[in-house]
Amino acid sequence: MAAIYAVIMAGGKGERFWPLSNSRRPKQFLPLVGGEPMLTQSLARLSGLVEPERIFVITSAAHAETARQCAPGIPAANIIAEPVGRDTAAAVALGAGLVRRQDPAGVFVVLTADHVIGPQDVFQRTLADCVDVAAGHEVLVTIGIVPHEASTGYGYIETGDAFEYGGRTRILRAKRFVEKPDSETARRYISAGNYYWNSGMFVWSAATITAALKRYRPQLSPLIESVASGGEPEKVMAELYPGLEKISIDYAVMEKADNVLTALAEFDWDDVGSWPALARHLEADEQGNVVVGEAVFHDAGGNIVHSNGRLTALVGVNDLVVAQGERVTLICPRERAQEVKQLVERLLREGGYEDVL
Amino acid sequence: MAAIYAVIMAGGKGERFWPLSNSRRPKQFLPLVGGEPMLTQSLARLSGLVEPERIFVITSAAHAETARQCAPGIPAANIIAEPVGRDTAAAVALGAGLVRRQDPAGVFVVLTADHVIGPQDVFQRTLADCVDVAAGHEVLVTIGIVPHEASTGYGYIETGDAFEYGGRTRILRAKRFVEKPDSETARRYISAGNYYWNSGMFVWSAATITAALKRYRPQLSPLIESVASGGEPEKVMAELYPGLEKISIDYAVMEKADNVLTALAEFDWDDVGSWPALARHLEADEQGNVVVGEAVFHDAGGNIVHSNGRLTALVGVNDLVVAQGERVTLICPRERAQEVKQLVERLLREGGYEDVL
Repeated sequence: MAAIYAVIMAGGKGERFWPLSNSRRPKQFLPLVGGEPMLTQSLARLSGLVEPERIFVITSAAHAETARQCAPGIPAANIIAEPVGRDTAAAVALGAGLVRRQDPAGVFVVLTADHVIGPQDVFQRTLADCVDVAAGHEVLVTIGIVPHEASTGYGYIETGDAFEYGGRTRILRAKRFVEKPDSETARRYISAGNYYWNSGMFVWSAATITAALKRYRPQLSPLIESVASGGEPEKVMAELYPGLEKISIDYAVMEKADNVLTALAEFDWDDVGSWPALARHLEADEQGNVVVGEAVFHDAGGNIVHSNGRLTALVGVNDLVVAQGERVTLICPRERAQEVKQLVERLLREGGYEDVL
Repeated sequence: MAAIYAVIMAGGKGERFWPLSNSRRPKQFLPLVGGEPMLTQSLARLSGLVEPERIFVITSAAHAETARQCAPGIPAANIIAEPVGRDTAAAVALGAGLVRRQDPAGVFVVLTADHVIGPQDVFQRTLADCVDVAAGHEVLVTIGIVPHEASTGYGYIETGDAFEYGGRTRILRAKRFVEKPDSETARRYISAGNYYWNSGMFVWSAATITAALKRYRPQLSPLIESVASGGEPEKVMAELYPGLEKISIDYAVMEKADNVLTALAEFDWDDVGSWPALARHLEADEQGNVVVGEAVFHDAGGNIVHSNGRLTALVGVNDLVVAQGERVTLICPRERAQEVKQLVERLLREGGYEDVL
């Protein structure tokens, strides 16, 4: 098997879990589900498959120190701080350069830092199969999630024929990447049966993704080559990042390339993009209340309470999200949790709330 | 005019404002309305009418120190700590003994420590008129509030003829004390026009209330006489209080006596017995939100937020009470605020929450 590298995207801002998450501590650094920060769990999930020295964590300058604290065992030099955010195409290009610098024949997995994934052995088996394929073929492998509902919150991958190889994971040829659909379109995708959610996880050799980036996004070549040839990443980024356009790897490459495969995840996956999504990972009491921390109830049901460090007492209220941040308490109906972002954005515009945002 | 004494009842537990109030700091010691603790405001309201040396504050042993802090200018010896709570008849008997010890001809007002009352000059004029009457006649004067709604939360006093005297405050002969009525009965009282709310404030001479207590509640005589004849109040209470039955002055005396007058309050009075009542004393924003402390809203209206020390963020919720205690956040609909008491009682029974109750 080729040497496996991992590039972990840990640049998220995590406004959706404000005030639990905030600009100083986004979702990937919080123990939202499980006792450890999501990034720490994401790294632990690779244990035995990827050597710590071959794992790179890409985050923002503001969060580099927090990322280091959440990444015990990972060499400090492997925590890469982007001077400014330039979306995932730039981060993948940077990752390709970092891997090639250590191993021109390296294969790397691109993973997110803030998703819930398990069981670990199934996850690793999927990655290992993808690595086998990516090492032996000039292909870009995306990991597709079998959709369990007609979600409008994810991009979809339309797939075609099976890709034959020796492994156990089902891998299909990708025909088309489509953006978040409306609900009717999503239902059509589900009925069709050959559409999968785009998980944002990818596997490819450093050489193959470099070739794709050069073809479809030549602006990124100087970044890749400077890092691959031994340039100090911080220095290269400081010089080149500000001039880059913000573009995702999906737009920049995946929607255009014709050598894309989709490996179907057999593991459980959730990007935990909302409070109701978070609640699915926690056990509810008889009244349907889900609690992290300490809460008491009197005729109250269906609430999601995150209350570390304080006691939350709910009397006669239903289906609320209550989140106790360090200095802020948020209260909102479960089904309106997505509007929290609007409040946070307004407070940012108005000013005066910087210390709690 | 006779020398005026005041006995302030500061023994309330204040469960209705939990978690803002709790067993360590009940309502009378909190700045619920106005910047000062309610007790401090109650004392300041007597300024110029009653000498500080003639004011007694009766509270529980657990709160004596807090009461002293909230009663600057009152001699420490005048803060009387009951070893156990025995309701208002015992506290009035104690007050009668304390006043008689200083002045056998003294007249005293019995006041609460946790009500909102104003303006001060109107209040003092009413008290002065009552003191005049109580000094010159063997009567028990209660202060009645002109009801502005058919409340089921107060006891009512049925009144008869006017009591003629030289003062300005209207004083009527009381015919009957009735307990909290059901809503139909309350409406009948309001229509009748001669029923007033029982404010729990009284004015009488030490001699007249002593005579009434001796007649209707002879068990209390040893307490009164021991204190009146110079016995150390703490010592007398330690000996006699535990053996006393819990009974209110209304049951023990007022419902039975035939020499009761009712002075009609011209001042504004509110016992602030609930969160919605509290909100009436605070200014609402355009969406009807009432805030003490810091709060932000996104499409949320009609909420009552008490948020000192934290920021409360409400998104898409209406007509809630949100109270931030030191270690507890309470959330409940305005119209169900009275149920908080049930939760507090349950937590007391269950145990394990002593440090936040």
